[in-house]
Amino acid sequence: MIFSKALAAIVAEFEKLPGIGPKSAQRLALHFLRRPEEEVRRFAETLVEARSKIRFCRQCQAFSESDLCMICADPSRNPAQICVVADVRDVSALERLNEYKGLYHVLHGLLSPMDGVGPGDLKIRELMARLEGGAVEEVILATSPTVEGDATALYLAQVLKPLGIRTTRLAQGIAVGAELDYADQATLLSAFQYRREM
Amino acid sequence: MIFSKALAAIVAEFEKLPGIGPKSAQRLALHFLRRPEEEVRRFAETLVEARSKIRFCRQCQAFSESDLCMICADPSRNPAQICVVADVRDVSALERLNEYKGLYHVLHGLLSPMDGVGPGDLKIRELMARLEGGAVEEVILATSPTVEGDATALYLAQVLKPLGIRTTRLAQGIAVGAELDYADQATLLSAFQYRREM
Repeated sequence: MIFSKALAAIVAEFEKLPGIGPKSAQRLALHFLRRPEEEVRRFAETLVEARSKIRFCRQCQAFSESDLCMICADPSRNPAQICVVADVRDVSALERLNEYKGLYHVLHGLLSPMDGVGPGDLKIRELMARLEGGAVEEVILATSPTVEGDATALYLAQVLKPLGIRTTRLAQGIAVGAELDYADQATLLSAFQYRREM
Repeated sequence: MIFSKALAAIVAEFEKLPGIGPKSAQRLALHFLRRPEEEVRRFAETLVEARSKIRFCRQCQAFSESDLCMICADPSRNPAQICVVADVRDVSALERLNEYKGLYHVLHGLLSPMDGVGPGDLKIRELMARLEGGAVEEVILATSPTVEGDATALYLAQVLKPLGIRTTRLAQGIAVGAELDYADQATLLSAFQYRREM
């Protein structure tokens, strides 16, 4: 971008964002230049305001505007169940189901020795603290069935075992509506191993 | 996103951006929440500052921080050649070649009757004004070889004809390094029709 230093500066800022390559960064930068100045200012203010308002929920570690997030503060949720997820996006995905009525715990990552992420880098200590009272009856390990997700679930299952709390994991198998002969081998193997009685 | 109104507000802002769907908007919003407050503020300021500095170049209609853009203001560029493009991104692409030494003219769009974009919506009047002095010897129509790009080039060629200025169009054909039998029919037909002497 040879037009201006200011333009080059915002392209560089957009390139730093996750999932935004050089082409997208350029497209976003040009988009903002085409919008009215007032609209760009409003966008910037919304962003800064949101960042200044939001913190971690003291209990589940999800994002929240107050000390406790909306889910943790909801008295109709069942405090005896904790669903452990890697990321706040997973909370959104599960909440959309309108099925689960317990609480959550966000790890903010997954174990990944290759990337230098160990148990100390995740919100595991905070999870253990929540289990101390003895009121929790089930911990649902809802990490993705990936190498890191499986490793994290396995690690947590071992750590939780001495506490005698029921520990479950989301089912793995063929996606609903998918064709059996298009499923990859690992998925098919999981589906076979975890087959259930009818 | 059930965590907070402030979060929902920035997700909604990101979803308005071009090429950003609900998933990417969520990812971007969460990215900013994870960054230090000071960094988010700096990002917002860079954006607002760039927008307030940048305007259209009086001559070529590209983005510029001053009255004339860096290319139009460069005395080493040849003012007898004007390369007409749809978008400022095309100027960047052509400048990277380090081949063309003339000036540009940015139309800011392409003719598209289906979307209600007619000649009056493009910077065609500004182009015609630049040709009035009689100093321009060649107009290179560098719109993409798409339906809209071809239609715009054809329209401009007709408008320019009475002026007696040499009007050229970028070559269409098989991409360099591409296999002939993988080229689509339209490209192969173009390559055949516009074959040149060796």
